[in-house]
Amino acid sequence: MKIIPHLTSDPDALGASAGHLVVPKGDDWEALSLPVFSFNKGEGPRLLITGGNHGDEMEGPIVARRLVDWLPREQSCGSVTIVPELNPLAVQAWTRNTPVDGKNLNRLFPGRSDGSVSERIADAVSRVLLPAADTIFDLHSFGPTWDIPPSVIMHPIGDANLMAKTVRMAEAFKLPVTLVWQHNETAGMFDTVAHNQGKVLVCTEFGGGTVSSGALAVYEAGLRNALIGLGIIEGKAEHPTFRQQKSSRSLETLTSDELRSPARGIFEPLRSILDEVKQGDLIGLLRSMESLSADCIEICAPTAAIVYGIRSGGFVEINEEVAILARPLKL
Amino acid sequence: MKIIPHLTSDPDALGASAGHLVVPKGDDWEALSLPVFSFNKGEGPRLLITGGNHGDEMEGPIVARRLVDWLPREQSCGSVTIVPELNPLAVQAWTRNTPVDGKNLNRLFPGRSDGSVSERIADAVSRVLLPAADTIFDLHSFGPTWDIPPSVIMHPIGDANLMAKTVRMAEAFKLPVTLVWQHNETAGMFDTVAHNQGKVLVCTEFGGGTVSSGALAVYEAGLRNALIGLGIIEGKAEHPTFRQQKSSRSLETLTSDELRSPARGIFEPLRSILDEVKQGDLIGLLRSMESLSADCIEICAPTAAIVYGIRSGGFVEINEEVAILARPLKL
Repeated sequence: MKIIPHLTSDPDALGASAGHLVVPKGDDWEALSLPVFSFNKGEGPRLLITGGNHGDEMEGPIVARRLVDWLPREQSCGSVTIVPELNPLAVQAWTRNTPVDGKNLNRLFPGRSDGSVSERIADAVSRVLLPAADTIFDLHSFGPTWDIPPSVIMHPIGDANLMAKTVRMAEAFKLPVTLVWQHNETAGMFDTVAHNQGKVLVCTEFGGGTVSSGALAVYEAGLRNALIGLGIIEGKAEHPTFRQQKSSRSLETLTSDELRSPARGIFEPLRSILDEVKQGDLIGLLRSMESLSADCIEICAPTAAIVYGIRSGGFVEINEEVAILARPLKL
Repeated sequence: MKIIPHLTSDPDALGASAGHLVVPKGDDWEALSLPVFSFNKGEGPRLLITGGNHGDEMEGPIVARRLVDWLPREQSCGSVTIVPELNPLAVQAWTRNTPVDGKNLNRLFPGRSDGSVSERIADAVSRVLLPAADTIFDLHSFGPTWDIPPSVIMHPIGDANLMAKTVRMAEAFKLPVTLVWQHNETAGMFDTVAHNQGKVLVCTEFGGGTVSSGALAVYEAGLRNALIGLGIIEGKAEHPTFRQQKSSRSLETLTSDELRSPARGIFEPLRSILDEVKQGDLIGLLRSMESLSADCIEICAPTAAIVYGIRSGGFVEINEEVAILARPLKL
């Protein structure tokens, strides 16, 4: 008998339940059982929270498990289903892509039941978890090689009503930045599939390298604010403190705001996140490892902008992203 | 004719020179040519500065290249030889170990001329660069998975005079921490070989994830202070600002201060670096990825201590280091 993706618990049952999302066996890997936690207090929003879509973005899985701890005590309505680690194979390997098939889970939605293990995970999530949700928080971060401010990111959505609703949801986190990112390669992303079904999906994104106790506190505060915004828990939403400041701004990144390395070499960042730069200002340097001089290539801002993200100093190949600029959001 | 390791430039020539340290071809890889920059102003200290011993510790290579830029204008005496990237294969791959042979260069000194490529690099450094130096700064950092304060680290040295001299050299960087680390596995380290030859070798160490412009500024300031301490450049050494503070402390880490994971799972850091903890205080949590509850294992401080380093949140196998404690240095 062919096993199809299924849940071993019933998230529609009132109260707390825990079980597994079973991703069937395929040619390349055995069946996976992803822990799933559901908290159902009846009428209200139907929220799905997923972490560990990429395996080197660990704030999400950790904060999702914290939520499993305190949500039952605080929830007043609605239902919340939490999958801390969507991609346990990548989490264990601390890699962005799944080591078994080398694929990026977040480019494979809605997935394939007869595909490789990453495609089967996407298929199981799309079939079993997504239909029941009206709102999704996909907990990401920028991984170990980027510095960005704690953010909620979304891509532009064709449906103006859904766009406005999604921006409002993103802003409810009260994180330092809400970013609308005009990204060229959104095919197969979890949010694209969810938006096409009329659902609100936002991605939390963090940066700055290590997953520290301080970063986790900011991440968790943002998630708590969003739950307050949805009415799932009670309380007063407050801006978390990030680098001595409590503030939020809404920005957008155009495709021309992604700066890339003009050659291979060691990228040296010269700017910090949220710096305001003028046209022509230096953003970073690129130094050839073979060079016998101190010469380097200057990477400059093509327009006045705000530095949203900057790559960690390190070796880059030609045409790798080294900085992401942004500008105030105009809706 | 057998090629032996050699320099293509003459660091004894007065003035600035640039060339390559040639690491001969072996069975596993072709010959390497590592850029070497020498600045000789006659009498004075003979300083060797090396970066990129580990390929995922990028502060060193970047700051070493910056030094190539400004040192010629500021140097007043002595000689300085700079090798920004000791291990270009690992730097390009952003890996701690050399990808070709899977080896940790800093466990292979003094190296082997007939060994694998990492062993041949160690051999070339030991034969060609080390003999001419009386002082060595090996520029490390803790890589992308640890949070530590900017530090200068050394291991205990049997010779009390050399120990005292090396501690003084480390403290001259005026970085937030000078750490004497009782490490069990120092065989094959660059500093062990240098100390056995009566030379002063200290390692700069940084942490905190991304190699940002702010981190690079602190690293560079420490290196400038050390050059002032040696009399190679003139100026006034000043504490760099780190997290709104300008201060230094000297600490030591005993082998019992290295806390390890009691099981496999996701480590969640609950403390920040330089936190003071009491015996029994929580340092972090370990959560099983398979668990269907919010249960976790508590990792606590075995004694009162200062948190020197804490691992980034993420998956760990059993018996991996998750925190490094320290206490005030008693010499």
